[in-house]
Amino acid sequence: MSGSLADAAPGDRLAVWAPDGFPEVRPGDDLAALVGDLLAADARASGDPLRDGDVVVVTSKVVSKAEGRVVQAADREQAITDETVRVVATRERPDGLSPLRIVENRLGLVMAAAGVDESNTPDGTVLLLPVDPDASARGLRAALRARFGLDRLGVLVTDTAGRPWRDGLTDIAIGAAGVAVVDDLRGGVDAHGRPISVTVTALADEIAAASELVRGKTAGRPVAVVRGVGRYVPAGDGPDAEGARALVRPSADDLFREGSAEAYARGFADGRAAGTPR
Amino acid sequence: MSGSLADAAPGDRLAVWAPDGFPEVRPGDDLAALVGDLLAADARASGDPLRDGDVVVVTSKVVSKAEGRVVQAADREQAITDETVRVVATRERPDGLSPLRIVENRLGLVMAAAGVDESNTPDGTVLLLPVDPDASARGLRAALRARFGLDRLGVLVTDTAGRPWRDGLTDIAIGAAGVAVVDDLRGGVDAHGRPISVTVTALADEIAAASELVRGKTAGRPVAVVRGVGRYVPAGDGPDAEGARALVRPSADDLFREGSAEAYARGFADGRAAGTPR
Repeated sequence: MSGSLADAAPGDRLAVWAPDGFPEVRPGDDLAALVGDLLAADARASGDPLRDGDVVVVTSKVVSKAEGRVVQAADREQAITDETVRVVATRERPDGLSPLRIVENRLGLVMAAAGVDESNTPDGTVLLLPVDPDASARGLRAALRARFGLDRLGVLVTDTAGRPWRDGLTDIAIGAAGVAVVDDLRGGVDAHGRPISVTVTALADEIAAASELVRGKTAGRPVAVVRGVGRYVPAGDGPDAEGARALVRPSADDLFREGSAEAYARGFADGRAAGTPR
Repeated sequence: MSGSLADAAPGDRLAVWAPDGFPEVRPGDDLAALVGDLLAADARASGDPLRDGDVVVVTSKVVSKAEGRVVQAADREQAITDETVRVVATRERPDGLSPLRIVENRLGLVMAAAGVDESNTPDGTVLLLPVDPDASARGLRAALRARFGLDRLGVLVTDTAGRPWRDGLTDIAIGAAGVAVVDDLRGGVDAHGRPISVTVTALADEIAAASELVRGKTAGRPVAVVRGVGRYVPAGDGPDAEGARALVRPSADDLFREGSAEAYARGFADGRAAGTPR
């Protein structure tokens, strides 16, 4: 299996659920205590407590709320500017709205509006992404491991993002602790014994997507449990350090680091400055 | 809830599994019979048959094999050319390999090598994508509905794809029948009663991603069952016609329709031809 964590074992079954009853989160709340209370109540109701190998998935929205990453809606455009490292593409919007900015933010994530979020936020406010979602995931993991007496517990922090070429949004992992974010099959062999040359599976994004299916967007269930991916949840302190940041492709390596129109315009200006060919 | 199919209901739980024992598929095989045999055997072993609302997920690889979409590996570059509608970006590769071509293929999918696949294929061959994965999904769905006496049954056909900005591959839906491929929440309201303006969830891609977590890439389990998304599996003939094609964003609407370097080069040439500004 070489660089890969063990492939899915026969009989592995995925179970994903999102308990009801999570309270509205306010700045300064102890998020780990709230998540722990939710999971403890869910375990009491179901008779089925958290187990080693489970992954707890929490939306970045509640992490941001607990961390007080709230700004006034009137300051939204400035907030996007402040979160932006590099503008990747823009699109004009109708009705005098500010152009949509797709940017690389300080976390390396390429996102519309830098990930600044205006749904499911208190009136008149918008939410910034957590300061360091990998650190948030590590903090949640440490608290939940201690509370539930577990060793192998993963935590993901998710956000919802668009992507080129395909309509619709999917959830992705922007923070991770105690769970492998990729399964690197390079160097392994396929069922015909031939090398698998290019497959690196974005596990953490697939787990995030699965969790979205039970959370939904409007139902107030920001916490999900994913069971059945325990082979990616190592013992001990695990690959904490890697985090979801490892899923970000450095822009220098990215064939789509700049919007098509923006790249064309830059090329046009440079070509014009270079002068007419003979 | 307006345009949205009902949001996840409390207590909805996702279960995903991939039965062992699927045979090697050969051109001309009756794929629906093979998938049906696998699911029937799985139900006998578990005592838990397929139910209304389940979604059966099948990799495009076995669909392609059954459809005989096999070409000699020596013809790989020509096969990619034949599948290509438009070259989106290219990247040089070391060691005298042909450049990697990221293209829009005849299905509208933007993919490396047009989706032509060289892993888990018989020696000396490569696989093309199915001719019409939505039609393949409709055919599988009709056969499985009849065999198992079910009304509400969804079928997805998946492939594995890379994406800009993020490392690692995820599974996406390239064919769909009997299951909504998006959940359009626009016009709905969030938990604060404010309009949700931009959320269209790419359900079918999230279901595809969840199924990959139990299938793995090397274990010979190309079929998965996803239970718990029945609210997206309508009664009767459902939104068959839409299919996974609806997830493809038309290139004219795409801010990343062309690689950054390609757009820059085109702009440079045009700018140079336009002449030095006075």
